[in-house]
Amino acid sequence: MMLDQDRFFPADPTTRSIARRLYKEIAELPLVCPHGHTNPAWFATNEKFTDPAELLVTPDHYILRMLVSLGIDHAMLGVATKDGAPTNIDGRQIWRLVAENFYLFRSTPVRHWMDHTLETLFGIDAPLTASNADKSYDTIAEALQTDAFRPRALYDRFNIEVIATTDSCLDDLQHHATVKDSAWKGRVIPTYRPDCVTDPDSPGFLQSLAALGDLTGEDTFTWQGLLGAHRKRRKLFIEFGATATDHGHPTALTCDLSPSECKALFADICTGRATSEQKEQFRGQMLTEMARMSLEDGLVMQLHVGSVRNHSTEIFKRFGPDMGFDIPSRVNFVHALRPLLNAHGHDPRLSLIVFTLDESVYGRELAPLAAAYPCLRLGPAWWFFDSPDGMRRYREITTETAGYYNTAGFNDDTRALPSIPARHDLARRIDCAFLARQVAEARLGEDEAAEVIVELSYHLAKRAYRLGENP
Amino acid sequence: MMLDQDRFFPADPTTRSIARRLYKEIAELPLVCPHGHTNPAWFATNEKFTDPAELLVTPDHYILRMLVSLGIDHAMLGVATKDGAPTNIDGRQIWRLVAENFYLFRSTPVRHWMDHTLETLFGIDAPLTASNADKSYDTIAEALQTDAFRPRALYDRFNIEVIATTDSCLDDLQHHATVKDSAWKGRVIPTYRPDCVTDPDSPGFLQSLAALGDLTGEDTFTWQGLLGAHRKRRKLFIEFGATATDHGHPTALTCDLSPSECKALFADICTGRATSEQKEQFRGQMLTEMARMSLEDGLVMQLHVGSVRNHSTEIFKRFGPDMGFDIPSRVNFVHALRPLLNAHGHDPRLSLIVFTLDESVYGRELAPLAAAYPCLRLGPAWWFFDSPDGMRRYREITTETAGYYNTAGFNDDTRALPSIPARHDLARRIDCAFLARQVAEARLGEDEAAEVIVELSYHLAKRAYRLGENP
Amino acid sequence: MMLDQDRFFPADPTTRSIARRLYKEIAELPLVCPHGHTNPAWFATNEKFTDPAELLVTPDHYILRMLVSLGIDHAMLGVATKDGAPTNIDGRQIWRLVAENFYLFRSTPVRHWMDHTLETLFGIDAPLTASNADKSYDTIAEALQTDAFRPRALYDRFNIEVIATTDSCLDDLQHHATVKDSAWKGRVIPTYRPDCVTDPDSPGFLQSLAALGDLTGEDTFTWQGLLGAHRKRRKLFIEFGATATDHGHPTALTCDLSPSECKALFADICTGRATSEQKEQFRGQMLTEMARMSLEDGLVMQLHVGSVRNHSTEIFKRFGPDMGFDIPSRVNFVHALRPLLNAHGHDPRLSLIVFTLDESVYGRELAPLAAAYPCLRLGPAWWFFDSPDGMRRYREITTETAGYYNTAGFNDDTRALPSIPARHDLARRIDCAFLARQVAEARLGEDEAAEVIVELSYHLAKRAYRLGENP
Repeated sequence: MMLDQDRFFPADPTTRSIARRLYKEIAELPLVCPHGHTNPAWFATNEKFTDPAELLVTPDHYILRMLVSLGIDHAMLGVATKDGAPTNIDGRQIWRLVAENFYLFRSTPVRHWMDHTLETLFGIDAPLTASNADKSYDTIAEALQTDAFRPRALYDRFNIEVIATTDSCLDDLQHHATVKDSAWKGRVIPTYRPDCVTDPDSPGFLQSLAALGDLTGEDTFTWQGLLGAHRKRRKLFIEFGATATDHGHPTALTCDLSPSECKALFADICTGRATSEQKEQFRGQMLTEMARMSLEDGLVMQLHVGSVRNHSTEIFKRFGPDMGFDIPSRVNFVHALRPLLNAHGHDPRLSLIVFTLDESVYGRELAPLAAAYPCLRLGPAWWFFDSPDGMRRYREITTETAGYYNTAGFNDDTRALPSIPARHDLARRIDCAFLARQVAEARLGEDEAAEVIVELSYHLAKRAYRLGENP
Repeated sequence: MMLDQDRFFPADPTTRSIARRLYKEIAELPLVCPHGHTNPAWFATNEKFTDPAELLVTPDHYILRMLVSLGIDHAMLGVATKDGAPTNIDGRQIWRLVAENFYLFRSTPVRHWMDHTLETLFGIDAPLTASNADKSYDTIAEALQTDAFRPRALYDRFNIEVIATTDSCLDDLQHHATVKDSAWKGRVIPTYRPDCVTDPDSPGFLQSLAALGDLTGEDTFTWQGLLGAHRKRRKLFIEFGATATDHGHPTALTCDLSPSECKALFADICTGRATSEQKEQFRGQMLTEMARMSLEDGLVMQLHVGSVRNHSTEIFKRFGPDMGFDIPSRVNFVHALRPLLNAHGHDPRLSLIVFTLDESVYGRELAPLAAAYPCLRLGPAWWFFDSPDGMRRYREITTETAGYYNTAGFNDDTRALPSIPARHDLARRIDCAFLARQVAEARLGEDEAAEVIVELSYHLAKRAYRLGENP
Repeated sequence: MMLDQDRFFPADPTTRSIARRLYKEIAELPLVCPHGHTNPAWFATNEKFTDPAELLVTPDHYILRMLVSLGIDHAMLGVATKDGAPTNIDGRQIWRLVAENFYLFRSTPVRHWMDHTLETLFGIDAPLTASNADKSYDTIAEALQTDAFRPRALYDRFNIEVIATTDSCLDDLQHHATVKDSAWKGRVIPTYRPDCVTDPDSPGFLQSLAALGDLTGEDTFTWQGLLGAHRKRRKLFIEFGATATDHGHPTALTCDLSPSECKALFADICTGRATSEQKEQFRGQMLTEMARMSLEDGLVMQLHVGSVRNHSTEIFKRFGPDMGFDIPSRVNFVHALRPLLNAHGHDPRLSLIVFTLDESVYGRELAPLAAAYPCLRLGPAWWFFDSPDGMRRYREITTETAGYYNTAGFNDDTRALPSIPARHDLARRIDCAFLARQVAEARLGEDEAAEVIVELSYHLAKRAYRLGENP
């Protein structure tokens, strides 16, 4: 057994025993996965995964960046180069490289997720090292050949109740259609992600606008046509089960311009020669437009901000985006969200879930805002911070101002399907540990903590994302 | 018993027993309340409080904002609308609404304060719920009819040694006069708050300036007249026992302009058409002028910054200020305070107590500044942060740089008279817990910790606010 | 015994016993001191220290600022005034003043360092107080008269393996030469600190440029000459054992201008009338130039940013720099480092160690950057933050993103030779405490933690600073 039954619980015996009891309340609850990046094709085709490295290493930017930071090249880890320069495609060799260097991940979440995945999925009972690399590679490769490791089987085995993918607003949703039409009972729903047409800095922005027009029959180079096209696409996503939109912006700026200002701004945007300031304004205006559409169609908004994408030009040129070189930066929500909040912040139809990579705003900005505006909910600790201490700090800093009920539960935010149970389990344990301390210090009754842990593990996510009913 | 005798103490048995011993040293010490917002009329007229909701719910913006954030309207909670639209005035109904939703406050300070108030003042021994709402309402309403719950009786029962109110510099201090002239021995003193005439953005600024002139016989539309008027008003406040001024500014900017620049700036301010920059400069200059007057008359300065007031325009329009929609924002002290500190930072006559809502400045700015300049003291964790974890973080982050003796002790900062003992008790317990960890980890001797806890609970506040003698 | 054998370890018995076992692994390891400010003359001349106050008080800005902040003048503590006004030069009187006020340092690192120094070096077994001041003064003064307290003897006794001083790039390194030529085996190496000629705001900048020319025979008022001069000086430092450069800049800005832009910029700098923006750009360009030279000669770069120097004009005028009035301020690394990182961030020859005084960047900026770029390492918690809780926060916030192996080990950064063992011991204990919690919560195996603690205490510093071999 590599996994201690009390892992992540405080060492103090009294507190630990409370944490254990709380954990028992929720250990068997289904997983609600309202935000993530799994590939819907997996669930549509239900094909077997093949190579352990391809499944567990190459697509994981957490693993890539750590190894790169200690001097191992992306190409050695199987990442395809953009210019076709040779890359390591030997899965076993990649696996060995990771195993030899796996000590680098000590005390990081990758280590915790991997241990959990190896033991619970593949019965491997020791942390990855150079000496056990070949054996674990074989064990995993063999397992992947069985039906029990097909995507739908994993979904069922993981006790997932619902999983949302993240999909371009231009996506044809064919995989979601396949799943929907199948006899399989899994609930795989899309999320409406329109960044390619709301952010003028996204690559191919004007082509994306044109494509949006083609898909909807709207003239998306006019302001009204653009809004109409979004309405149609959102409707389609809702038909396939979507309950949310997702917006990844450099800043949290929102705007609330008059219709004529919007038209004039969009005309400049369409020229492809807008200023940085105009682009920022357009992104901000589109957030408010998305909020307005949410009043009509009920989609929950998610806003993720503060990542400086592709910080290393060299890595971006050689390998493209999502290679571990997105770096957080300082953000401001107080002034930035005000236009949207002043327009619709008290409308009970709006639900806006906000995520940050700048922990200094938890206590100063996000908790106070969420503890005032009815529309706002705090998204969970995210990306660099969905780690034991990161999630603990999130609770310690936000709870005393915003309580538990202004938070949106956990989401795993991952493209790594096998790690989903590990991530939920870790989050649940950290919440148990947090609540156990509350109980041990007589800040909350244990009966109340038992109610709260069920909320944090299950109900809050369902409510925040309006997932109550399978449509 | 709802209140555990070890509440807020660490669970580790060794540490907990140290905390208990430290707490015994200070549990009976009088309460020093050098900064707060109780109504002096209470102590002057000594009339009974009437309705439980009116006393414990409606004026409390902590309670309002949390309930509003989960979808309950201010009007349902008894808050009067500005346009006279109907509002809930049935105290029992309001109390029930709070009780039904009281689980929302789990692990927030409101919960801790309310539990303490209910048990110690009214003998109620379970947290508020829908099912006990009517009973607790009756219990409280009945108690309020007795003399033991009149304001002066509460003051005496709470073992308050001194309580400062916060008063506009235009206030006639009649209630303070009444208290002073009475046979009652309570010490209720005013605090000089001149924001209405130092902040050109405060509503009715020019009228306030005129009123200041009427009260003092000075021409307050001239620079010298303005300063002279402040001097006279400060003198009056001192006669009524004031030992401090209080300044609530959007930023910590201070300025140190020449007299001719001041005159020119003030002339522009008086036109009512000054720029934002000029207004900011005027606020900054007035802080330095107040510091200079403090050198003469000995009033301790308090500076509270970083709140974006009335963030929701809708709430402000319907209900006015102080409705839970003041949101912190990022602040900077290092450059902002420099002009004032360079002018008077080493003058032993000056005492400047600084408060922040941006925790990221504790370690980076305020502790280093307070650990260098003789005039500076750190105010306690404030507003959103006078909570168990908020106060713990304050000690953990500031102590190693600034020590204990550059801090200003606790103040309750509240308008909620019944909660005052709860707030002091919570702060004292968190300090006991912090010190107990210091002792348990051999970072401080227990005899020393016993000295320190008395300082933190009692002497530091008296010294920082120059309350040593009852004039 | 004043020093508890379990000091700084968590109170929980299980965790504490793990911490003890880990500590045993490293308690006897040699001290690696790759960054500090001891005086090389001490090791060259090996003369006895004389006065306890002169050794332990007057040069220590941590002690000065705390006492000043509570109202004691620098002059009372023996600091020489710039205008020759009288200063206290009676060591015993200074020592008494410190002792009387030593309670002010409770729970600060000065207290911990002093206790450790007094007990382990001088056999004094109680914290400094007014009543034991004379006795401890005599004990120390007497010890300083013996050969066992000469600088080289202390170096040997402290089990120092290597100590780096920090030296102006204009320094003649004569003391290092003396040490090198001596029979003594101590390894005292210089560090190349070129701020006087890379920062146009440093006092006497143009004279320093001229001096650099004189030393190297280069025309240092031309861009090529300037670069050539640096290359020659760096070469000389390397000959005396240097493995690193050190850069103390107000911000982390780096630039990567074209050669012609560099020439034009430097021409303006040389006029002495450059704008603030040009000066900032020049500092930023010089960092990138230094990085380029490091590719050639292998010197490790250190970058310390975010200190507002000499915040109090009065103190600077009366006593000069380094008087405890350097105050941290907000910094940004993400955008600032990008030009340098884009130029050379993936070059395996570059090693850049970054330090911050703004803790809010640990998690948001520095850990993510260090966990991506091969050249970057996190310097340890620094200056205001090399304290028990400061170092704990550093590990808690950086480890989950950057792991242990992207950090640069500990350095004591001190000019206080007697306190060096105390500082290393404190850092090692805090790391033991951190790792013990990891083990107790089953986040890391104890065997792994035992490996990690050796890395943190010894190997990481050697590797990060390329100190592997004594040249």
